[in-house]
Amino acid sequence: MKRTKAHTNRIVLIGAGNIATHLGLALKRNGCEILQVYSYTEKNAKQLAAKLNSSFTCNLNEINKEADLYILAVKDDAIKGVIDEINFEPNLIAHTSGTTSLNILQARFSNCAVLYPLQTFSTTKKIDFKEVPFFIEANNQKNFNRISAFASLLSPKIYNASSEKRKGLHVAAVFACNFTNHMYAIANEILKKEKIPFGVLIPLIEETANKIKNSQPQSMQTGPAARNDLNVINAHKKYLEKSIGYKKIYTLVSQSISDLTKKNGAKPKT
Amino acid sequence: MKRTKAHTNRIVLIGAGNIATHLGLALKRNGCEILQVYSYTEKNAKQLAAKLNSSFTCNLNEINKEADLYILAVKDDAIKGVIDEINFEPNLIAHTSGTTSLNILQARFSNCAVLYPLQTFSTTKKIDFKEVPFFIEANNQKNFNRISAFASLLSPKIYNASSEKRKGLHVAAVFACNFTNHMYAIANEILKKEKIPFGVLIPLIEETANKIKNSQPQSMQTGPAARNDLNVINAHKKYLEKSIGYKKIYTLVSQSISDLTKKNGAKPKT
Repeated sequence: MKRTKAHTNRIVLIGAGNIATHLGLALKRNGCEILQVYSYTEKNAKQLAAKLNSSFTCNLNEINKEADLYILAVKDDAIKGVIDEINFEPNLIAHTSGTTSLNILQARFSNCAVLYPLQTFSTTKKIDFKEVPFFIEANNQKNFNRISAFASLLSPKIYNASSEKRKGLHVAAVFACNFTNHMYAIANEILKKEKIPFGVLIPLIEETANKIKNSQPQSMQTGPAARNDLNVINAHKKYLEKSIGYKKIYTLVSQSISDLTKKNGAKPKT
Repeated sequence: MKRTKAHTNRIVLIGAGNIATHLGLALKRNGCEILQVYSYTEKNAKQLAAKLNSSFTCNLNEINKEADLYILAVKDDAIKGVIDEINFEPNLIAHTSGTTSLNILQARFSNCAVLYPLQTFSTTKKIDFKEVPFFIEANNQKNFNRISAFASLLSPKIYNASSEKRKGLHVAAVFACNFTNHMYAIANEILKKEKIPFGVLIPLIEETANKIKNSQPQSMQTGPAARNDLNVINAHKKYLEKSIGYKKIYTLVSQSISDLTKKNGAKPKT
């Protein structure tokens, strides 16, 4: 980016969901100007624009053409439809998806990239971007350097990843984050029935997350499946008799733990 | 416990696994004397006894009869066999299992209880017991008070729970801890194939565990299944084509997230 130091990076956000919101706020905090927010839904565009002190639009034909970077942060299913309606050549356009390939942008635009933040973004919770790894990719070296410079405004943890590698990373993230959260949710559903507050599980959840910081999770596996405690496993399946979906998950995941424990020749833990 | 203040609580540990080790060390730190460690395996009994400055035995007929409390911390499958070989009436005997009923002790002993610590214990990692909730139960009020006094040496978080309620709690803990750890392990297996270090997932894992401290996990669910992003889900299933076990888990858990999201009428998150 051959710019004078006085130049402020100007951004257009296409999307007004959690990723667009958190990225927009963080880029603004780090000196960028958010020119405009686009969302299909006026209310969402307006709300985020107010937070970012920017203009907004619900019409892709009215996208501001002066930005240095267009961040495409919409649901993966919607990316293609949005691209098809952008009727100019952006300075640089990057999507934020873990799974969608760079190709989808490359087929339409000369300057394109991927800016994938490996984090879970919730509406209400502020994110420390300095801890977020960004996985980037671009259609040429010049654009790689440009997207890298944008990512550097937010985090020191920047990695180059191909679309295929990024997809693997996204699948891994779905297990480590989305599926983990669902395990918490199932635990909560069970505790609700027993009239036990979810809070009693917090120290256990913290310890489970903490203990894999310095060890491979495979070697930290505990519980009835890892130690092949069949009486306990059968008692738990019986307990879940009326929750068919949860019983299926219990059976399948227990089997998978048992298989991986055997494969790794790990010593069963109590 | 009508004891003079000078009385030191004397403990016999039956079992030498992770729970026995961590409980033994914590009780010793808090002023108890560990009289003896029993394990079926001499090496394990000897090792733990050395840490606790106690004697040890591998013979249930040689259990020291003078202890105030006998902690039965063996694999659930082994509890019955151990009980059958104890040929005297202990002052108080408590097992530490989440799933096994108090009845198994009550059928044999006059003074019995349950002392269930809701935590995951790894060989190498020290536990802050002050944060560990203990769920206790006893065969009468006097023994309840006695086991409560022992638990109080370790933690201020003591709850009364029936055997049935404790079983539900254990099932919930298996989801929140063991299954969560397995989700981390699967993520790690995927990253290994992509030659990406597991460490890149740590901020995501931390944030996932942190964000349910003040919110119900159901309301914090993110990812393709929660927002019904079918293109992504299908791309992930295709990516997992050769890992049949993981693909099955992906499909089943995604469906379960989708079902729970609909049931709760939660707004899909990105």
